[in-house]
Amino acid sequence: MPVDSTATAEVTAFRWVPDFAQGLVRDLRVRWALEEIGRPYSVRLLDATKPRPEEYFCEQPFGQVPAFRDDQVQLFESGAILIHLGSQDERLLPTDQAQKMRAIAWLIASLNSVEPAIFPLLMINIFNKGEPWTEDARPKFLERLHSRLKCMSEALGDKEWLEDRFTIADLMLVTVLRQLRGGRVLDDFPNLKALVARGEARPAFQRALADQLSVFAENQPEPQPA
Amino acid sequence: MPVDSTATAEVTAFRWVPDFAQGLVRDLRVRWALEEIGRPYSVRLLDATKPRPEEYFCEQPFGQVPAFRDDQVQLFESGAILIHLGSQDERLLPTDQAQKMRAIAWLIASLNSVEPAIFPLLMINIFNKGEPWTEDARPKFLERLHSRLKCMSEALGDKEWLEDRFTIADLMLVTVLRQLRGGRVLDDFPNLKALVARGEARPAFQRALADQLSVFAENQPEPQPA
Repeated sequence: MPVDSTATAEVTAFRWVPDFAQGLVRDLRVRWALEEIGRPYSVRLLDATKPRPEEYFCEQPFGQVPAFRDDQVQLFESGAILIHLGSQDERLLPTDQAQKMRAIAWLIASLNSVEPAIFPLLMINIFNKGEPWTEDARPKFLERLHSRLKCMSEALGDKEWLEDRFTIADLMLVTVLRQLRGGRVLDDFPNLKALVARGEARPAFQRALADQLSVFAENQPEPQPA
Repeated sequence: MPVDSTATAEVTAFRWVPDFAQGLVRDLRVRWALEEIGRPYSVRLLDATKPRPEEYFCEQPFGQVPAFRDDQVQLFESGAILIHLGSQDERLLPTDQAQKMRAIAWLIASLNSVEPAIFPLLMINIFNKGEPWTEDARPKFLERLHSRLKCMSEALGDKEWLEDRFTIADLMLVTVLRQLRGGRVLDDFPNLKALVARGEARPAFQRALADQLSVFAENQPEPQPA
């Protein structure tokens, strides 16, 4: 079992987050990759409900999770951590330069061409929910997201994974698209839904998800008196 | 002079774009990197004012520029192209794994933690300009951008570049922050403004910018009759 408090590889994660974020926090990406290669890691927990300690910003400039360190690197940004892990293990990322760079291109496409089209909808549907402007803004941002998903769907076609086999590119796309759970926008793209399902069916994903969720369950805040 | 129609490395770019996008189109990132290492490249021009040819989506799934190819790779996403070029030339990216991955982490921070906070403001200020919802939406998205820039500013501090020396991380951050030209949000972060100015002062940047702009000047559409 990769979670091992004596491991030299360390991932930061939150002790607890509200329901809408459970199973989506980005340490999941790193946990999943580590599970794919059976590499042990320890978890350092931070409190998401309080400001992060000042010194944490040296590790993660935005105060987010995950930060990662092992005996080679000290890193932030889940995308970079995945590239690092991939550069150490061919099961995550091919060593051939052409194939390796294709996977990195898809990974960055998820981070810079797909996920940025999702973020305004999180503002509209969660963080600023109910504010009048969100009703008129929603269709504009949904249209943008739809056009990006259409391109991804056409690029994936009927392939099992983005390139010949599972890589960190698929891992990233699956975790990005999972942020759309609860909405209906993926209904128009059955092949993307099927990709997410294939990713979620992988035993490594299942273990990573269970480990993230078990921390939240253990640290569930006491219900407030009514 | 790197632009050379016989070069095997090829970058796609637009023949012409409106003023607000001139000097910001993302082939600039790749041109700049190639200029830094004096590597020749040819340019294949696409028409931004018409739908892209169907077959172009095989090269660039979102129909955007740049796509890139050389004798090793066929790539899209400017971030991935910079990592590829960096992996071939230490002047762009250190070879030591710890230093290399730090630069990649900063590059991805620009693409996934900073630029996504800029994109909704382009929707608000340019693509949906004047629509009533944009007035109420603007402060919400500006606040988010401001908090991300504050983190980047504190991380940069009084350093010249993000890490010990200029890398693709700085190149990416400078080109991302240049999208804020014309606005005042960078006024609160003099060290980020100074970083942009240092980047823009590099001779390689100047040549890359001049080459992008000269194509637009040559292909300026005829004024429409009034």
